[in-house]
Amino acid sequence: MKLSARNVLPGRVVAVTKGSTTAHVRVELAPGLIMTSSITNEAVDDLGLKVGDAVSAVIKSSDVMIGK
Amino acid sequence: MKLSARNVLPGRVVAVTKGSTTAHVRVELAPGLIMTSSITNEAVDDLGLKVGDAVSAVIKSSDVMIGK
Amino acid sequence: MKLSARNVLPGRVVAVTKGSTTAHVRVELAPGLIMTSSITNEAVDDLGLKVGDAVSAVIKSSDVMIGK
Amino acid sequence: MKLSARNVLPGRVVAVTKGSTTAHVRVELAPGLIMTSSITNEAVDDLGLKVGDAVSAVIKSSDVMIGK
Amino acid sequence: MKLSARNVLPGRVVAVTKGSTTAHVRVELAPGLIMTSSITNEAVDDLGLKVGDAVSAVIKSSDVMIGK
Amino acid sequence: MKLSARNVLPGRVVAVTKGSTTAHVRVELAPGLIMTSSITNEAVDDLGLKVGDAVSAVIKSSDVMIGK
Repeated sequence: MKLSARNVLPGRVVAVTKGSTTAHVRVELAPGLIMTSSITNEAVDDLGLKVGDAVSAVIKSSDVMIGK
Repeated sequence: MKLSARNVLPGRVVAVTKGSTTAHVRVELAPGLIMTSSITNEAVDDLGLKVGDAVSAVIKSSDVMIGK
Repeated sequence: MKLSARNVLPGRVVAVTKGSTTAHVRVELAPGLIMTSSITNEAVDDLGLKVGDAVSAVIKSSDVMIGK
Repeated sequence: MKLSARNVLPGRVVAVTKGSTTAHVRVELAPGLIMTSSITNEAVDDLGLKVGDAVSAVIKSSDVMIGK
Repeated sequence: MKLSARNVLPGRVVAVTKGSTTAHVRVELAPGLIMTSSITNEAVDDLGLKVGDAVSAVIKSSDVMIGK
Repeated sequence: MKLSARNVLPGRVVAVTKGSTTAHVRVELAPGLIMTSSITNEAVDDLGLKVGDAVSAVIKSSDVMIGK
């Protein structure tokens, strides 16, 4: 499936932290460039996410702000 | 100002395209790693955004999905 | 690619309206149940979206409110 | 109150799962068509959400991606 | 309809600017406190939004960042 | 850092509630005008957020709906 999201950035999972319903997943996109994602615990289980997995961080362009 | 957003990723503007109310800005975060942002034209003007500017892409972790 | 988004809802494109940078796409998920999506014109072109296409509407659960 | 959100989809609550601060609510929009929503526990309490309730899933069009 | 969104803030429309598909609406929440909203032109028409209207700005808590 | 977000609203923290991974922070923008934000516990710690702090609520205009 190809997505309309302009940002589909490949990387590797470096951390998975589950809370009671929400989990935080960290993905390394380039050496030292880490993207943090908050997803449901259920999604972590469905995707079987674990450290070392090759994944993509997917972000809609309307969710990206610019700071200068 | 320090932000609660977990993702404040430094990069350089490589393209600015204004529409009638909404603009698209591309930021290179690492060689070949481009983030596309949709912001208001007004924000482009306020920040004086132009190609070559050092900026940060700011993304709330709840707006980052994972694909695997 | 499997997504962390909890909502990946199959449907059929019933309308595509492009603006100067942003397009609106309507997807019928069930008879009479229409989902409207705002995406970039660029995404419309990349996916070659047109009326009749089988697509999915993808929505992160944190972007869904409840009204009662 | 009428909303600017393009997607106000009527359905019925089929599950409510509360976490420590965030809850997941599932709404059936059509037979077999389930929408998952992450909202605050506080919202669940305020709306008195429970299985069987007639509700609407409310989604801004800029939060809907398309996959093809 | 009561909403799960934690932020339903009453105010008055002080400006409406339509683009080709997306409009910007400014709402004064308190003297000098302006909230800017980007919605579809279609929503502006559906709600018949015009300067002086009593409206509410509706924001999901997961879309609010904190800067300090 | 100046932000593209159209809404950077100054206020004062009136409550901080941490969950297992997600926290809720309430900010008073004007007398009686409260904005609720859901951010990561990690962000609360990084910013050292506590009641009484002068902060800003930061909201992208595309995340603001209008109700009328």
